[in-house]
Amino acid sequence: MKQRASLAALPLSGSTLSETALASLPPVVGDRAALLADLERLLPPERRLTATDDLFAYECDGQTLDRALPLAVTLPETADEVASLVRACAARDIPFVARGAGTGLSGGALAVGSLVIATSRMNAILEVDVANRQAWVQPGVVNAHLTRAVAQHGLHYAPDPSSQNACTIGGNVAENSGGPHTLKYGVTTNHVLALEVVLPDGSIVMLGGPAADTPGYDLVSVFVGSEGTFGVVTKILVRLTPVPEGVKTALAIFDSITDACRGVTEILARGVLPAAVEMIDQITLRAVEAYIHAGFPLDAAAVLLVEVDGLRDDLDQQANAVLDACRAAGARDIRLARDDAERLKLWKGRKQAFGALGRVAPNYYTHDGVIPRTKLPEVLAAIGRIAKDNRVTIANVFHAGDGNLHPVVLYDEREPGVVERVRAAGDAILKLVLGTGGALSGEHGIGLEKIQYMTALFSEDDLAEMRRLRSVFDPRLLCNPGKVIPAPGRCVEPGHSHRKLPLGH
Amino acid sequence: MKQRASLAALPLSGSTLSETALASLPPVVGDRAALLADLERLLPPERRLTATDDLFAYECDGQTLDRALPLAVTLPETADEVASLVRACAARDIPFVARGAGTGLSGGALAVGSLVIATSRMNAILEVDVANRQAWVQPGVVNAHLTRAVAQHGLHYAPDPSSQNACTIGGNVAENSGGPHTLKYGVTTNHVLALEVVLPDGSIVMLGGPAADTPGYDLVSVFVGSEGTFGVVTKILVRLTPVPEGVKTALAIFDSITDACRGVTEILARGVLPAAVEMIDQITLRAVEAYIHAGFPLDAAAVLLVEVDGLRDDLDQQANAVLDACRAAGARDIRLARDDAERLKLWKGRKQAFGALGRVAPNYYTHDGVIPRTKLPEVLAAIGRIAKDNRVTIANVFHAGDGNLHPVVLYDEREPGVVERVRAAGDAILKLVLGTGGALSGEHGIGLEKIQYMTALFSEDDLAEMRRLRSVFDPRLLCNPGKVIPAPGRCVEPGHSHRKLPLGH
Repeated sequence: MKQRASLAALPLSGSTLSETALASLPPVVGDRAALLADLERLLPPERRLTATDDLFAYECDGQTLDRALPLAVTLPETADEVASLVRACAARDIPFVARGAGTGLSGGALAVGSLVIATSRMNAILEVDVANRQAWVQPGVVNAHLTRAVAQHGLHYAPDPSSQNACTIGGNVAENSGGPHTLKYGVTTNHVLALEVVLPDGSIVMLGGPAADTPGYDLVSVFVGSEGTFGVVTKILVRLTPVPEGVKTALAIFDSITDACRGVTEILARGVLPAAVEMIDQITLRAVEAYIHAGFPLDAAAVLLVEVDGLRDDLDQQANAVLDACRAAGARDIRLARDDAERLKLWKGRKQAFGALGRVAPNYYTHDGVIPRTKLPEVLAAIGRIAKDNRVTIANVFHAGDGNLHPVVLYDEREPGVVERVRAAGDAILKLVLGTGGALSGEHGIGLEKIQYMTALFSEDDLAEMRRLRSVFDPRLLCNPGKVIPAPGRCVEPGHSHRKLPLGH
Repeated sequence: MKQRASLAALPLSGSTLSETALASLPPVVGDRAALLADLERLLPPERRLTATDDLFAYECDGQTLDRALPLAVTLPETADEVASLVRACAARDIPFVARGAGTGLSGGALAVGSLVIATSRMNAILEVDVANRQAWVQPGVVNAHLTRAVAQHGLHYAPDPSSQNACTIGGNVAENSGGPHTLKYGVTTNHVLALEVVLPDGSIVMLGGPAADTPGYDLVSVFVGSEGTFGVVTKILVRLTPVPEGVKTALAIFDSITDACRGVTEILARGVLPAAVEMIDQITLRAVEAYIHAGFPLDAAAVLLVEVDGLRDDLDQQANAVLDACRAAGARDIRLARDDAERLKLWKGRKQAFGALGRVAPNYYTHDGVIPRTKLPEVLAAIGRIAKDNRVTIANVFHAGDGNLHPVVLYDEREPGVVERVRAAGDAILKLVLGTGGALSGEHGIGLEKIQYMTALFSEDDLAEMRRLRSVFDPRLLCNPGKVIPAPGRCVEPGHSHRKLPLGH
């Protein structure tokens, strides 16, 4: 196949790309040498990386099954520099991929033989408007840094991915990231008012504006979540949210997963909208306890971590409704965190769960699907069967209130044949999710990882509509090509084969 | 100009179209007679209107300054019928305009010489999923009817335009409608999960899905608020929201508009997020009292109607914070509605304000702009000066918590020269709004009414991007053409001239 021949000509030393990735990624046909020469003119040496050793840090994002080196990495500091890099790519016919912190989980930042435009140096908080609760930030601002910077005004930036101490707001915009508090506060798109964007032709446009609503078509909403395929964001106007006056966090302990799932629906049926309802299963609880000592029970089938917030005097009623609901669902034990220290420890346990699971097995592969909440018990049971069938361990730690699953497949990539079984388990999980009327991704995106499932979820007409939309922004398909929307005829059937390119090719 | 010559050939008997409308609307060049013959084949006689007397009911929407007859009105009952009508229009090169209840306020449903596809017969609630809080509805379902139908399950449909007893959910989708409770619950786009759409080529596609998030590009968000220029919605999956356990409504009475504005910012500064914060000025209060007897004070400069909702025991603290804030802002008097009867009366006063103003003057023209909340006092003072300068009366009744103004210009169209002054006042208001960094429209849309201001708000590059987006859905510009996005070179400068076509043309 044409694209494989072309990929083979790239510096793919040590690359690991699935058949899907190889089939999806278009050939890089442009003048690589000329682009490298352009970079010398456009950026000082310390802000362009071309040595293989430097490029290794950019060979993948948080989805580590697929890995390959980019052509070069650039570190622009202004929108004009981004525009000049994009124009150079257009002139030389080389694709480019914007990259935040590289914490994405669907291979969206993989830039095989392409130019990486990393926004890490564009990390300034430009303006905070306390009265109107808005802030202009550059895309490389780390999510948690913004919250820290505005805390003095009683404000915070509400979307809180578990990676919030590392991930950037630009990356969050690309992926429309969520987090545990999505249940009450919504995902990134609910908190972005305007975007300055460098389009793939190098022009700089402003989408949206500071008013609560903007006339004309809602280009901000369609840009947010486009996974870096429409252009490079260079400035973001975000909404800031008041820090709630009070907060209470409950830990409900269940002896069965089914009861824990019933706890979720019972809570929401009582008219309480908690800030977060997270579920953590036994495998994860044990991993976390060994690492963080958060105070989780080792013998529970699952726990729910439920947080309510609001005006201080309101909390008791909300918390009581949560406790009643969990009791009605058969919780073995329920307790409220007595103070902030205990509360933060519980949350540290939840947010560092992925790191903790990394101690159980050297590799993990996190999935991301959304299902109707009412189907949680049957789907979790089916995931247990998938683990058994494929002889892998699967942990579950996820946003139960949203029905947003995160099955984590744990493995050791040195074990022969295991990667195939990991991919097979992932495939079975995604088909299970689709079978419930659910969606392929809640917050991690499609990227390269799930592109082959898009044909199962969307008709050819739907996909054609998305391709036409993409061409509005990027008619030449130079902006993160081969991701999100499969090119016609370029998508292999969902399969599990896995190809390791020989060294030196 | 070509389009005028062409419009003159249409049955514009009695039409009233501004220069802007005449300049924006493209010529209708297709085969009208052939389309009328097609209609006889496609629909039974009682579901196609072509007699001039019947068409008069469709000569405008709630913006009555611009009026003209459509070519014909059709009343399809299924998506397939809509598709066959759209295909007939495409074959005959005749534009078509979808229409809900016709309560829009920006002339978006005006269908000069085009085919109206009215959704009034597609008014079934197809499915209510109580556990997952979702409902599939047809586009002609009246907003308040859905809320009434799901009330037995403790649910409601949250977006509540003041016209909710008449307007349809399909129309709400087109305009991304808001309402008083937008402050807490968001606008229509926050409550729509999926759309079945007939595209302008007659194909039927599904956008979005029942899961909390859908992968791929967010076509639902960009369709919602596209003001009927992307296609005809034939089925809508909406989110349903639990009815709050309790609700309290406060009326705060102010002797100065500035104090009332300060009340708004004081409330929000205390970390309370009320369900609604509405402001009603003296002109409106007097009109409402004479009509509804809602219990509003006649001598106040303005009142705030503030509603808090949530768990029953939480309400007191929220209500107390609101009362404190209003007191701190200098309210003369504040009272809480004692019971549901009093509460509903206050809301009836607010929601019927436009009807009440209709008793003060036979004609009114409602504007719609969004400004940063902190600029409310200066903008309201400037609106007072604009009224004086143009010798018109302007009432203000609006969503103060959102900064979403609705200045209502009151007039009698029989008074010579008054329409020009009404348009001049409107022009001054919109320029004032734009000068604050605000937006042209919060919820009423651009339609035909404000199309000439889009060039003031957006650069030619921004507009070109929107045109490219429109062409993704409607490459031939047959779907509600001449609305929202000005065609290049087809937009007159903002002006106030007004042209009445002679009878018989």
